[in-house]
Amino acid sequence: MIADLVLVGFGNVARRFVHLIDERREVLQRDHDMALRIIGIATRRHGTITDPDGLDALTAARTVDAGGMLAASTDGSGAARCINTLAQNGAPLRIVVETTTLDIAAGQPAIDHVRLGLESGCHVVTANKGPAAFAYRELARIANARGLSFLFEGAVMDGVPLFNLVRETMPAVAIRGFRGVINSTTNHILSALEDGHDFHSALAEMQRQGIAEADPSLDVDGWDAAAKAAALANVFLDAGITPHDVARTGVGPECAGRARLAKAGGRRLRLVASSTRGGRPTVCLVDLPEDDPLAQLRGLSNALVLDTDTLGKVAITQMDGGLTQTAYALLSDSITVRRRTHAIA
Amino acid sequence: MIADLVLVGFGNVARRFVHLIDERREVLQRDHDMALRIIGIATRRHGTITDPDGLDALTAARTVDAGGMLAASTDGSGAARCINTLAQNGAPLRIVVETTTLDIAAGQPAIDHVRLGLESGCHVVTANKGPAAFAYRELARIANARGLSFLFEGAVMDGVPLFNLVRETMPAVAIRGFRGVINSTTNHILSALEDGHDFHSALAEMQRQGIAEADPSLDVDGWDAAAKAAALANVFLDAGITPHDVARTGVGPECAGRARLAKAGGRRLRLVASSTRGGRPTVCLVDLPEDDPLAQLRGLSNALVLDTDTLGKVAITQMDGGLTQTAYALLSDSITVRRRTHAIA
Repeated sequence: MIADLVLVGFGNVARRFVHLIDERREVLQRDHDMALRIIGIATRRHGTITDPDGLDALTAARTVDAGGMLAASTDGSGAARCINTLAQNGAPLRIVVETTTLDIAAGQPAIDHVRLGLESGCHVVTANKGPAAFAYRELARIANARGLSFLFEGAVMDGVPLFNLVRETMPAVAIRGFRGVINSTTNHILSALEDGHDFHSALAEMQRQGIAEADPSLDVDGWDAAAKAAALANVFLDAGITPHDVARTGVGPECAGRARLAKAGGRRLRLVASSTRGGRPTVCLVDLPEDDPLAQLRGLSNALVLDTDTLGKVAITQMDGGLTQTAYALLSDSITVRRRTHAIA
Repeated sequence: MIADLVLVGFGNVARRFVHLIDERREVLQRDHDMALRIIGIATRRHGTITDPDGLDALTAARTVDAGGMLAASTDGSGAARCINTLAQNGAPLRIVVETTTLDIAAGQPAIDHVRLGLESGCHVVTANKGPAAFAYRELARIANARGLSFLFEGAVMDGVPLFNLVRETMPAVAIRGFRGVINSTTNHILSALEDGHDFHSALAEMQRQGIAEADPSLDVDGWDAAAKAAALANVFLDAGITPHDVARTGVGPECAGRARLAKAGGRRLRLVASSTRGGRPTVCLVDLPEDDPLAQLRGLSNALVLDTDTLGKVAITQMDGGLTQTAYALLSDSITVRRRTHAIA
């Protein structure tokens, strides 16, 4: 079955996704009866291209890698044009893949892209935290009403299954709460501080690796973790909140003493995102005992502990993270769309 | 949709399952359009009862809890009679729930029960490790050929999703290997030994809690872990082996010195089950560095680290275990049967 895709946003994750599709073409066809065809790419700075018969996305990725333009015009209406082209074509599966960067003020323009995609009759998968963090209820309602999928596995812990874990493998289980270490930059910094290293050099290392942004304030001020906590609370605990409702702490040079003191006392200082059902989600610094599964996470490892009514506490840990994992989340969500279509056909 | 069940084996897990069905009746109907009805119970020592119109399983559970008989006759053909009754009835979903105890010689009679169920046109869910550890390929082949489900989430780490995790949430991912701490009795003993406690009192505590059997040799000789390792290798790595092909070590009083020495040196002695694709699975004692996610597991906690081609290493940890969790695995598998039927209908 052909699935036509448009890519809204064409940064590192989307470009890695293009390569991943190419690398997994045979497995997708053999195991999932699915051929992914990209018919549109909308970028903010490199122009927008569409071709209803499928375009050469690998070449487009290389062009943007090299700093080139896909098209001369960057008039700002690219996403809408792409989604419109997709909505009008006759493919059995039509998927909008949203990967614009997180806007912490209001989750835009990602929310508008998701809404437009769904209202145009297309499935939407996204690696952007914004839509689930700011507008989960509304977007899920539109998707459900139209029998469409709105999926965002990549929003938290890259491609490691969290949302799929609960939805697909824990039927008839209620989530009572969660706690997790879900921001890699601050976890790397805290790991470095407790070992006596310097805040600024630890942060610079994360920027060098492409984990932290050039403007790292979303990470170090706790906003990235707060957006993830809001998404988790909205989906698992029916919270109906935004990241601005999360009680939030960041990580700065002033944490060094506390991190070293914790380690000297057999404990670990970690930035923990947590919530219980009905409670206010928080992102705060916690001194954890060494045998806490979150205490052992160093550097780029992330983990989430789910508190469930039936299985007790279950933890899932991402030991390796990166671009490929996030790109895989988009692929995994696209396969979920395909599986559900099979169920309806 | 009505799902008719027969219970083959009626020990602690099956009796907890009967209560769980009762407790979750509304959720099952509301979220999964599923009404579970038990029409047969086959036991080895308490007789066999069948009623094609549904029987009172809660009363039966209480009878056996109190040491009573379900029926006078215990002629040994109860399982076959139950499965035959199920196969002949007209329910849209027919599921054999197999929970006899593990036989480490050859996985019997569980394998025969599973095979008979599938060949009679019924789905089979089991918490017994034997069928997947000894005969996965054959049983999966029969199930696939007939469009039936053969599911065994409870075989490893109780109801924590492992087999479902990979099958449902990691599409297009290849597993390269695994390593895990998957036997609670030996992990409790090693945790106690490193703290200077005595082997026999640690083992007695596990027996008192109902975690270890009166004859604990399956646990302490490493057979339980070997059976789980074989099941994991058969399903994830296409190994086609039995527990007797696993290189196996147990845990005894002689481990005390090594466990204390490891802890004194900032390491932990753990019984680790592992395999790589194409390699021979092993269950052996390993000195783990303290920051290894398996090193931190104490007492009844279990964890499995999956090595994947796309997501790197992903760990899932069971922080609480017990009867309810294993019983839940049977419920989760039953819901999977229902979901797949929806997909076909």
